[in-house]
This record gives sequence, C-alpha cells and structure tokens, in this order.
Amino acid sequence: MEVNELDKDKGDKPTFTRRVIIENVRPEIQDGRFPIKRTIGEPVEVTADVYADGHDIVHAVLLHRPLSQQGWKEVPMEPLVNDRWQAKFIASAEGIHLYTLQGWVDPFQSWSRDFSKKLEAGQDISVDLLTGVHLVEAAAKRASGEDAQRLAACAGEASRLRKQNLKAAVESLSNVELTTLMMLHADRSQATIYGKELKVVVDRERARFSAWYEMFPRSCGARGGQHGTFRDCEKRLEYISGMGFDVLYLPPIHPIGRAHRKGKNNTEEATPEDVGSPWAIGSKEGGHKAIHPELGTLEDFRRLVARAKEFGLEVALDIAFQCAPDHPYVLQHKEWFRERPDGSVQYAENPPKKYQDIYPLNFETEHRHELWKELSSVVLYWIEQGIRIFRVDNPHTKPFDFWESLIAGVKAKYPDVLFLSEAFTRPKVMHRLSKLGFTQSYTYFSWRNTKRELTEYFADLTQTEIREYFRPNLWPNTPDILTDFLQFGGRPAFMIRLVLAATLGASYGIYGPAFELSENRAIRPGSEEYLDSEKYQLRHWDIDNPSSLRSLIARVNQIRHENPALHGDWSLRFHPVDNDQLIVYSKTTADRSNIIVVVVNLDPHHPQSGWVDLPVEAFQLDPQQPYQVHDLLTDARYFWRGIHNYVELNPQVMPAHIFCIPQVAAG
Amino acid sequence: MEVNELDKDKGDKPTFTRRVIIENVRPEIQDGRFPIKRTIGEPVEVTADVYADGHDIVHAVLLHRPLSQQGWKEVPMEPLVNDRWQAKFIASAEGIHLYTLQGWVDPFQSWSRDFSKKLEAGQDISVDLLTGVHLVEAAAKRASGEDAQRLAACAGEASRLRKQNLKAAVESLSNVELTTLMMLHADRSQATIYGKELKVVVDRERARFSAWYEMFPRSCGARGGQHGTFRDCEKRLEYISGMGFDVLYLPPIHPIGRAHRKGKNNTEEATPEDVGSPWAIGSKEGGHKAIHPELGTLEDFRRLVARAKEFGLEVALDIAFQCAPDHPYVLQHKEWFRERPDGSVQYAENPPKKYQDIYPLNFETEHRHELWKELSSVVLYWIEQGIRIFRVDNPHTKPFDFWESLIAGVKAKYPDVLFLSEAFTRPKVMHRLSKLGFTQSYTYFSWRNTKRELTEYFADLTQTEIREYFRPNLWPNTPDILTDFLQFGGRPAFMIRLVLAATLGASYGIYGPAFELSENRAIRPGSEEYLDSEKYQLRHWDIDNPSSLRSLIARVNQIRHENPALHGDWSLRFHPVDNDQLIVYSKTTADRSNIIVVVVNLDPHHPQSGWVDLPVEAFQLDPQQPYQVHDLLTDARYFWRGIHNYVELNPQVMPAHIFCIPQVAAG
Repeated sequence: MEVNELDKDKGDKPTFTRRVIIENVRPEIQDGRFPIKRTIGEPVEVTADVYADGHDIVHAVLLHRPLSQQGWKEVPMEPLVNDRWQAKFIASAEGIHLYTLQGWVDPFQSWSRDFSKKLEAGQDISVDLLTGVHLVEAAAKRASGEDAQRLAACAGEASRLRKQNLKAAVESLSNVELTTLMMLHADRSQATIYGKELKVVVDRERARFSAWYEMFPRSCGARGGQHGTFRDCEKRLEYISGMGFDVLYLPPIHPIGRAHRKGKNNTEEATPEDVGSPWAIGSKEGGHKAIHPELGTLEDFRRLVARAKEFGLEVALDIAFQCAPDHPYVLQHKEWFRERPDGSVQYAENPPKKYQDIYPLNFETEHRHELWKELSSVVLYWIEQGIRIFRVDNPHTKPFDFWESLIAGVKAKYPDVLFLSEAFTRPKVMHRLSKLGFTQSYTYFSWRNTKRELTEYFADLTQTEIREYFRPNLWPNTPDILTDFLQFGGRPAFMIRLVLAATLGASYGIYGPAFELSENRAIRPGSEEYLDSEKYQLRHWDIDNPSSLRSLIARVNQIRHENPALHGDWSLRFHPVDNDQLIVYSKTTADRSNIIVVVVNLDPHHPQSGWVDLPVEAFQLDPQQPYQVHDLLTDARYFWRGIHNYVELNPQVMPAHIFCIPQVAAG
Repeated sequence: MEVNELDKDKGDKPTFTRRVIIENVRPEIQDGRFPIKRTIGEPVEVTADVYADGHDIVHAVLLHRPLSQQGWKEVPMEPLVNDRWQAKFIASAEGIHLYTLQGWVDPFQSWSRDFSKKLEAGQDISVDLLTGVHLVEAAAKRASGEDAQRLAACAGEASRLRKQNLKAAVESLSNVELTTLMMLHADRSQATIYGKELKVVVDRERARFSAWYEMFPRSCGARGGQHGTFRDCEKRLEYISGMGFDVLYLPPIHPIGRAHRKGKNNTEEATPEDVGSPWAIGSKEGGHKAIHPELGTLEDFRRLVARAKEFGLEVALDIAFQCAPDHPYVLQHKEWFRERPDGSVQYAENPPKKYQDIYPLNFETEHRHELWKELSSVVLYWIEQGIRIFRVDNPHTKPFDFWESLIAGVKAKYPDVLFLSEAFTRPKVMHRLSKLGFTQSYTYFSWRNTKRELTEYFADLTQTEIREYFRPNLWPNTPDILTDFLQFGGRPAFMIRLVLAATLGASYGIYGPAFELSENRAIRPGSEEYLDSEKYQLRHWDIDNPSSLRSLIARVNQIRHENPALHGDWSLRFHPVDNDQLIVYSKTTADRSNIIVVVVNLDPHHPQSGWVDLPVEAFQLDPQQPYQVHDLLTDARYFWRGIHNYVELNPQVMPAHIFCIPQVAAG
C-alpha cells in the first residue's frame, strides 16, 4: 500500500486531534541529523514508542521510500511490550532511502473489542450495534469502487438484521472480510505522522565486507633499487589476488615535491636520489590530478585498474589534501594557503616539529568556495578514471562541513563510491566523520591487544548505536603504525593480529608486503615508525620468502569468503574462557545456518590452554548431544559436548582456531 | 557578561566556517521538545560534547536567561574528559528559563600554546611572534574604549620590542592581563550556537518537597451521620497541621449528581439518604465552579483556605473533568458529549462495566475549542479563589494536547500553580503527562513491596533521565487503593509504608484519617476498594483512638522538615544488607553536611536482623574511627565503625530506623 502525501506540518505538535504519540524512534542518529548506514539487502529494523491517551486501539505503520521516488511503501508495525512497536524493511538499492512512521487510533476495532465484552456479559447490545453500523457506513464513504459497495452492503445488512435476528447482525459485523476492509479504509485523517523523515545511506556490499591490501607501487620494481611502475604492479596482481584480497589501496600516485624533500628514514636533507614521500604531493609535473611520471602514464594507470578488476581487485586511491611547496596550487592559488607574517607560506607544524615539505591548505580562506570546488573536482576526476574507493588521509584536520558537502555531492552522483576515513584521533571526532558520510573508518584496533581491551572496544562498536553509522576497518599495521606487539612478538604476533583483524572485522586491511613478511624493525626503540620506511625510500620485498604468511592470509580470506557469518559485524559475541590469554568470540548468520567460533591465543610467546564456554542453546545446538567443531584453518575436526570444552593453542604452530559448527537436525 | 543576540539560523548546519561542534547536550528531553524541571535554587548542570576539527583550542559557554528577559547570562564551560564539557547555573526564579550553548575556536590561545613549545625548543620565533601581534591587533579592533587602547598598546609594544629585546616582546604577549582581554574580546563571529534553546520550568520548593493529606470534608462532621462542612474542616486543621503536613487535598467539593447516584459500597441503587460520589460532579445546584451546598458557601471555602494557611497548610483541589448526568453542561452543551445512536448521552464504560452516573466529556468534539476553554476557566476560577495546587483525576483518559495547553496557559499567568497527575496507567503515558507539564505524579510505589521492586523502581526514578521531568509523589493508600500489604499487615504495615513513602519520596501523601487509623477492611477479598468507602458514604473517624499513628506521622514529618537531605530525591542510594526483608538507603545533601540512612523491615510480621554495608568513604567518614548513628525516630544513638554494622528491627515495636549520621571533623 502506498501513501502519496504525508502532511508534514502536522506531526508531533499540539494539534489536539492527533492523539497518537510517536517517539523514541530507533535507529535515529542525533535527532535525525545524520543518516544510518546499510548495505543492499540488509534490514532496517525500526522500533518506536507508539501510544495514545485512553484505551482506544492504536495502529502504526513504518513508511519507507528511496529518496528519488515519491510513493511511500507501508509496513504494519507489531506491538512488542510496554507500548513499544517494531517493523522492518529491506534496503534494496544503493543510494539514500527515507523512513518515517504513522499512527492512528482505530474506533472500529476499539468498538469491536468493547462490543465483544458486552456480548459475553449478555448485555443488551442493540444500541451498541448501531454504533458499529455507523462506523462501517463512514468507512464506506471513505472507500470507493467495490470496497465502498461491500462496506455499504455490510452496514445495510447489519442494520436490517438488527430487528429480526440480532445474532446474525452481530456476525455480519465481525467477519474477517469486514475487518480487513475496515483496516484498509481506516480514518487516517487524524493520524499522527512522525515529524522527521529519517535517512539511510545504502551502499554496495563492499562497504560492509572488504579485505584491503595496501602497497607502494614504486616498490614493485623487478630489481632492488629500481623505481616500480604501474606495469610492475600488474605483475603483482596475481600474488595479491591469490591471497584473497578485494581492494588494492595505493598511497598517493601523484608527482612528489622536491623542495624540502625528506631523505631516507625521514631525514631533513634528501640526496638527489631520494624519492621523497608520496604524501608530499605536487611538483612542476602536476598536482592532485597528475600521475608521478616514474610510475607511468594515465593510460598505464587505467590499464592497472582494469587488470586489477580482472583479478577481482578494486583499486583504491589515497586522498591527501595537502601540498608540497612546489605543487602548482602554491604558485597559482597562494590565497588557498595561510601566509606567515614574513610573506612565506605557512608549512605544516606540530610544534616544535616542522614539516616544511608540506603546506596545509587553508580551508577557512575567503576563497574557500573555489578551493572546496577544486578539491571536489579532484575526487570526481579519479572517479572518471574508474576509481570508486578512496582512503582519505587525516580527514580530522579539515573542517567537518567540507567533508560532509564533498561526500554528499559525490555520492549523489555516484552512490557506489566508498570513502575510508583515516582519522586516528579522539573518539568523538572519528564518530562525527563517520556520521557525516565516511563509509568506513580506521579504528583503535591496532593498539587493542588484551582480551579486556578487545572485548570492550568491539562490544562498543558492534552492540551499541555506534554500529548504525561507524563501520570499522581493522588494520594490524599501516606504513605509519608498526605496533609494539608486532615489533616484539615475532611471526606469531603477525598471525595473531591477522586472524583477529580478519574475523573481528568484516572489513580489514594489511600494509604489505611488510605484513606478510613479518617486517618488524622500528626506526628506534619506542617508535612505531618502520626502519627504512617505504614512505621515504624504495624497498624491494622478497615476496617468495618461505616464512611469508601469504598462504595463511589466503586461507583466512578464503574462510571469510566462504562463511557468511563473517560478512558482517553485528552478530559478534564474546564468550567466556578461563584463561586471560585466550579470547573466544563468535559470529553467526541470523538463521544460525553458519556459526563461526574463533579462539585466539593472544600470547605470541607461549602455548595457552583453557576451558571455553559456548552458548549452545543460542547456537540452536542440542546441549545433550555431541557436536562437531571444524577448524577451518587446519581442517582438524573435534567433537565437543555441552557448554564447556577444552582448547589448547601453541603460537609457534597456529595461534588460533577458526571453528565452523555445522548445524545438525535436532534429535 | 551578556550576549544580546544569538543568530539562531547558524547553528549546527553546514555553514563551513563554524568549526565547533556542540552535540549530545544533557539534560535535553526528546530533542528539546519538553522542558526539564527544577525548583528555585536548584542547579541546572549541563554537559555537552564540544570539539572542532584539527588541534585548535576550543572554548564553550553555557547561556541562560529567564524566558521573559532578553539578555543571556554566560557561564564558561569546563572540559571534563573525552571532549565532554560541563557548566551549571542556578534556577533562581519561578517560571520558564532557557539555556543553550556556544563554542568557538580560539586562534590566540592556540597560537600561544604552539608559541610556548617553539620557545622551549629554542626555535627562531621572531616571525611567529608577529602572528601573535596581528591577533592582538585584530582584538583591539573588536574591542572599544579602554580595552581597545590597552590591546593596541600591547600589540605595539610587542612589535616595537621585537627587534630590540625579543624576550621582553614575548613577555608582553603572555601576561595575564592580555590573556584575559583576549578572552573577553575573542572573535566569536564564527562561533557555533547550539541550534536549540532548551527549557527549564522552575517551580517553588513545594513542587519538590511536600507532604499531602487527603481528606473528605463531608466526613468531618462533629457527630456520626452528620454531613461535615467547611466549618467542621477548620476544626480539623490543627490536627492535620500537628501531624506536619503541608498540603490538604480535598476530593471534589462540587454539587453531586442525583441521576444514577451510587449507593453505599458502590451499589446500583441509592436511597434518598445516600450522599453519592464527589466525582459524579454537577447537579442543578451547579457544576465545576460551584460548591456542594451541604459543605457550605464559597465564602466558607475561602475562609477554610485562609485558616489552613495560618496552620501552614495549602489547600489542594481535585480537577475531575467529567460530569454527572444532571450537570448543567449536559443540558446546556450536549455537543460536548458523545451521543449514542439512540440519542442518549454516552455514559462512562469499561466494558462490561457501566458507570451510568458519569458522562465523560468528548474532547474530540467539533466544539472542542469552546469546551477546552471552559475547562481551562474552571482551573482559573479556583485559582482566583486562592487555590494554587490541583490534583488531576485520570488525566490519561483525556488528550495529551489538552493538558499541555491548559497547564502552559495557567502557568504562564500563575507560575506558582502546581499540578499532581493521578495517572495510574502505563509508564510511557505517565511519563508523557509529566513531560508535558504536570508538576508531580502519582507512582507505582503503592504496589512496590519487596526490596528488589523498591530498589529497581526508585533507582529508575531518581538516577536516570526520568528525574529531569517526573517528580514522584508516593501514596501508601488513596480512597481507591487499599493494597494487600495494608489489608494483611496490620498496624506495622502502615508504619512500614509510611516511613518508606516519607523517606523514599521527597513528596508523599496519605489518605486519612483512614491511614493513621490503620483502616484495612476491603469490600471483598481480592479487591483494593475500602469497605464502607467514603467515596459513597459519610464516615465518622475516631481520630483520638490511642492506636492512631498520628504521633509517628508527626515525628516522621518533623524529621523530614529538619533534614535537608530528605528535601529531594536525586541523592537516593540503596545499600547492601544481607537480609532480603530489610532495605537500606540513604539521602544526603551535596556537601554531606546532612546524611540520612533509613533501614526498614519490610516484613510486618517478624523481627528481622542483618548486617548493613554503608559507603563510609562516600559519606566522608573516617573508616578507622567509630561514628555515631542517631535514630531520629526513637532518639536512640549507636556507635558504628567501618562498613559493616548490625541492625535488628521488630515491626511490633518500630519497623524502621531513620538514622542521622552527624559529621565529625576528620582526625
């Protein structure tokens, strides 16, 4: 059923004839200021308090529609307890959808309920029956066509029978057909319409489920010391795809500034051979829309994107809105930068540190209109080259409104574009960026190592309102982050963090080949910076090293793909185990047809064992019967029984189980 | 400091120069749709998330003003942790007050912070110093008078000293006077103003702290069988006042209908002697603005009100918007009632029950404008007779919007008027009525008997957002409610419920003299109706009966008056005791100068004992030293030590302790 017009002016305001109250609607982010997020096919389950004064029967419906269409679809809401109601719809297409609620009192059903009680009590109901007849007559007037005729006929019949055969008259007002017709033609002129139309941004599945691989193209050269090109990257695609990744994310591919270029290991003085940081964007060869000549041409790039696609890989680009001193913007648009009192351009600072190779843009400049438009055009330019995923560098140092307008503008035209926010900052700032439009966000996962830290953090991300707008993307390492845990935990530490990232997060990523080769040398003690970081120099990686984790990664990504329970984060639940070095959690599909239980030894140095408690009843397992747990990592199968079962994990062998529990028919 | 103009259009919207975000403001009821409540002198403590992109220093202020005044008062907010800020103001006068927030980034303080770091690192800061000078110059232009001169002088001095004595120049930009002036003349043209002006309804103290006594005037006759009058009531004032009550609440005092009048014990047929229910309002003698002739004249009534005042008692009237069949409205305004199909007026029903002595008003009538206005005039009429407190009968069976407009209209003119909602219905409906304007509300206290029930219910009422708008008023009994606990617990049950009501609730009430005389005879098993209920007949009460609880009541009310901890509900905390028949809780003043600990034996039949745990550190007591607990009920004093202490209560003697713990200077 469709309602074509909502009279928006008459929502929850003191218009005294609208007796139904609709409030406490969930999900609703900050009074509806921000949309919730879903991917195609995901349900939007809406609950609300709906009630009226007095004792009349209330009805409520959930209304939803794509922003681009006019007609609302209606779903009847079901009462739960305590005046709370519920209904859901499926987000069936990309783009923005709207939802709202409507509620009304139903005099006919209220009359019908009271009438039944009087009948049961054997009271004289001949006058009461007429009240019902009048309600049916009124509905007949609201209806048209056959419905109007049937309603009128029904009222007429009851009225006629009243004096002859009261029992038959009563029956004529209580049959199913009449009840249905009365519902269909209820008087909704006094219905309360919830005052807000709430938004859902519906993305393609990759927004929710993705495995990212970050790689510096310039390190893909055939030989050490040789600057890699896009053509070289093509040769690496089979390797990356073979590990089961979906997204190949490249750091900035633009010309790199020469002025104040940093040398190897971030030294102040660069030699002429030094390649500089890809994030120091812009030189006389061009800026954010240009390609670094040593990587190849635009055509080479487009070819890489196309070849990657053949391998099931989507190329993601980096959006880093800052400039090297020799970026064309600096010459052509000095007004887009801050000026120091001595007339020079203000470089980036984190006092007392100075980053003289980087000029931040002044987003508050009087000429911001032109600046913002230009930056938006950068994104659109790469979209035109076939890119649909962007990893955004430090969005938290630019105004929130800039991102909100940029992302809204892009997604209005290209709803399939995804943005990953690299905001390693305070929680509220990260959340704001997610709310205003970023599809996914980096998280604090990198620094959450203990069972308590992981449990608290992921319970927060997956079981609270945060999940409505914040989609976590978990990275064990990045070119900026080599954690203590990885530095000092050896190869098992990488295995542990891989399994955690790939199973706690439906979206995760690694920075390779550093990751699969367990690169763990920091520039100095206490620093998370890599020694000989690719940010400042070429690296030649021995990807065929036999100690590489590539086959484990491939296995983990295959498990992810084959098990729908791992395609989302909302079903994540942690389970007790009597050893703080072990963590146990599960993910399940809504119908329990796929149950994944992960056990990880968080200690990279010692074997750990313990007794796991599983919620066998929630898993719909017979607590009296043994059940199989199948370790998808090793293909081992165990028979467990009941709630308590024993596990033991040696990190030198395999620090984790990823169990699948096949469902067996009960009995 | 005052801000005279808030540019309301530029709140939290994509106006890109307003970088500060203000969100998650508390208290804020349903997006600011409803006001919070305070009494004069109570603080309004406001918290909010306030932050900006990047790393600039942010400032925030809380703005507040009475609705009737234009200028905002400003209170600087203090940062807590995690971008949460806090400030408070005192609600200093009756009526509606507004509050909102403002936040801005401070370039001068941001500059100053960075400048210090550079200085410490020994960097060349001569150019950076000029940036500071420019910021001071800009502030000089915004300021006027002496401030402008001092700022300009300061900038000039720093600028001049820069080349001669850099150290002196730096000092001239970092002194306290300059910092204060820069704060005072900060550039707030880009400040974010929170999009909503939130409301506080400020009432007089009685809204928060009140002891009510309900009494049927017609039962105050000097002799049994004689219809009591207002003059008789006057003679009862000393008795009521002597028990320490503040509010004397009278059931409806209007003429009582004769048609379908109910007899004693709610029988269908009344004899000519039967006095009828005071809630069957209206007869040929008049309606809601008239006085039942047998009670006296309007003059008698006004005299009673004045005499009560002399005894410290405020008279509260009952607002029951329904009519007896012979109410003048029925004759004059048949359009205000529902008509049955046979042309008769629809009487009240709760099928299969019929209340033919009561006609409900049709609040949805087409003539509602006139009806609503007339009903409003009823309240205003009694206000003009000196009444400022109304107990409203069954407000949940009338439209929410009716009450919202009625109460708002009355309180705009008479902010000292208080309304008590008698809505014994579903929680959300009760809460809605409180939010839309009722000052106090009846609660489920009457049926919460066990420790768990009481703890959960009162934790909810006093420790969650509910407390911002819902002020509980606790009644152990009413003319409609004689609970099982009172029916079967004997005199100790009345003592238990009295102490609970009077100490769990800063506002409470009893229906007397039934209560103090431990009247516990129900009309039949399983019913909460009194036998020989005063609702349908006169009762003559032996108030001097030696078993009366009047002296206990007087003692309890005296304790309430003398102990400010009992004047509010928000400090209520429950404490562990190892016996489920005992309940222990405390109320304290904010400064801990008054600490009240209540221990109640919930079992009216048996002595109970147990070990109580008190939070001695939260009470600011020395856990190593003995401390005195002084039972204000019995005047007994005990010396306790540490957390665990023993209690024992015999319900036949005294089922409760009300301990005061005097503060001793730490030593």
